[in-house]
Amino acid sequence: MTSTVKAYRLAAHPQGVPQESDFLCDTITLPPLADDQLRLRITHASLDPALRPRMNAVSAYAGAVGLGEVIPAPAIGEVVESTAPAWPVGSFVSGMFGWQEEIVTSATGLWPVDPRRAALPDWLGVLGLSSFTAWAGITKIGKPQAGETVVVSAAGGATGSMAGQYAKIHGARVVGIAGGQAKCARVVDDFGFDACVDYRASDFLAQLDRACPDGVDVNYENVGGAVMEAVYERMNIAGRMVLCGMVSEYSAADAFRNGPSMWPIVYKSLRVEGFRASRYWHLMPEFTTQVLGWREAGLLRSQHTLSHGFQSLPKAFISMLKGENFGKAMVAF
Amino acid sequence: MTSTVKAYRLAAHPQGVPQESDFLCDTITLPPLADDQLRLRITHASLDPALRPRMNAVSAYAGAVGLGEVIPAPAIGEVVESTAPAWPVGSFVSGMFGWQEEIVTSATGLWPVDPRRAALPDWLGVLGLSSFTAWAGITKIGKPQAGETVVVSAAGGATGSMAGQYAKIHGARVVGIAGGQAKCARVVDDFGFDACVDYRASDFLAQLDRACPDGVDVNYENVGGAVMEAVYERMNIAGRMVLCGMVSEYSAADAFRNGPSMWPIVYKSLRVEGFRASRYWHLMPEFTTQVLGWREAGLLRSQHTLSHGFQSLPKAFISMLKGENFGKAMVAF
Repeated sequence: MTSTVKAYRLAAHPQGVPQESDFLCDTITLPPLADDQLRLRITHASLDPALRPRMNAVSAYAGAVGLGEVIPAPAIGEVVESTAPAWPVGSFVSGMFGWQEEIVTSATGLWPVDPRRAALPDWLGVLGLSSFTAWAGITKIGKPQAGETVVVSAAGGATGSMAGQYAKIHGARVVGIAGGQAKCARVVDDFGFDACVDYRASDFLAQLDRACPDGVDVNYENVGGAVMEAVYERMNIAGRMVLCGMVSEYSAADAFRNGPSMWPIVYKSLRVEGFRASRYWHLMPEFTTQVLGWREAGLLRSQHTLSHGFQSLPKAFISMLKGENFGKAMVAF
Repeated sequence: MTSTVKAYRLAAHPQGVPQESDFLCDTITLPPLADDQLRLRITHASLDPALRPRMNAVSAYAGAVGLGEVIPAPAIGEVVESTAPAWPVGSFVSGMFGWQEEIVTSATGLWPVDPRRAALPDWLGVLGLSSFTAWAGITKIGKPQAGETVVVSAAGGATGSMAGQYAKIHGARVVGIAGGQAKCARVVDDFGFDACVDYRASDFLAQLDRACPDGVDVNYENVGGAVMEAVYERMNIAGRMVLCGMVSEYSAADAFRNGPSMWPIVYKSLRVEGFRASRYWHLMPEFTTQVLGWREAGLLRSQHTLSHGFQSLPKAFISMLKGENFGKAMVAF
């Protein structure tokens, strides 16, 4: 077992959309195991939009990545060496690891991965953090009621596709927003949304009006910018906006400059709530039990955009930021 | 008993700050009483900033006032004629009445006023709708915890002065924002705020920083615009913004054009919640009981800016919109 493995480090803070040259493939030397530690061989790494704002030179988002640091990512690892009795060699765990072939980590703060209940990619997909984020946002914040209209942006993405399905399970009418007619059709066909609107279409706003004849009760927001503003304008009295991310702004030159007036929040009695999934991690066991049950009852569908090989990480991440994935984007090492 | 009384109607939709000529003193003819109705002689009318956006030609705020309509207002009335057994002649009620000397109203949807428990002006003040709004926003939405920092704008106003006192009762450290050094001093002296910052001062932001060395956990917002943005920038992780009103924008030429980016709501996990007190009216009995108790225990202080005479209504309302009042602004007929 070598103690030197490959890892990607942040080489430069990206300007706009990241370039492959912003990442440096380097090596790291793993230390020998102390007590209650694991050495993991990473099998799959998750690609998440939220990484992008963490790569900025000045990042207000918690968990900023400094130059030279290994790129962090949720990932699945197989235990190849262990000083932690709970995690024998050959078992699988997930956690916040990174873009590296192997890692030495404390045995605490990890989540169990049971390959007999679901295939490994599913533990980053329907059972992973993107799906958990969608579940927390819908069931703990947005709380759609039966018959309400829920609009989910980035509906073809890992979080949006699950948010819509959780809203459907709560009895809501679910409208997706995605980029391109083909992706919109898949959101309806593959994830069971009631409708999906193409934000790139010239008649996007008219499409959105037709898809939401009774206005919008809950918005699960992943995109921000003009897409979010269109939904914001259509919110009903006592509506809830669950702000998960703003991927359209992460690489934009005018990102985060200003937004719509907050006055509608007052006169429509809106609740606009942002969240980081980490605030809800204590609910992971409840999530895993509930979602395994729904999945085995045939209520949940998932799609993966799987890239292969450690070297594909930068290209696959950039592709995902451009919206070229469908469902959960990840890399199998 | 005459059936014709004086009333103020909306004569013109105001441009910017209202003028006295936007109001027309006219008469209305009261109908005879049907079953379960009351004829009230209005004794005190409340002056509320929220009336201003309802006066616009195009008002998104619920309850827009059309040209020629009587100006609506919370008020106290003495029953002078009754076909409702629950409200005998000589009893007092409060409700959403208007700028008129007398009114014939249904006996439902009214709140009892007990002049033995508190003087009549107090039933529009500490026991009235402005105070109720503050109570609902603090105890049901903002929910400050002991030791947290709460910032209240328009702290010298009817709602702000009470919001700060309710936050103090919950153990928070309370910082007010008001206009002018003299008003700020009174907010501290008369309402017991821990500090009060002058938004008109050239070093307002530095004052705010000094008053909130640990950031802001809860914002009770009455002002909007630049004052709100200053607080927004200082919100702590998991902070709550209770948006009650935006008085600085009601008469501004560039009102409601745009606001700050909503991105901090995501990365700071903020909850930004607007509300109308009407959504909480079912809690009025709980409010009245609790606030009478706090008041009799010496925990609440109030100030009234009382104008006299029905004819003073327009002038007193305009003065209140300019921030010239301290505490609750009302007119005694």
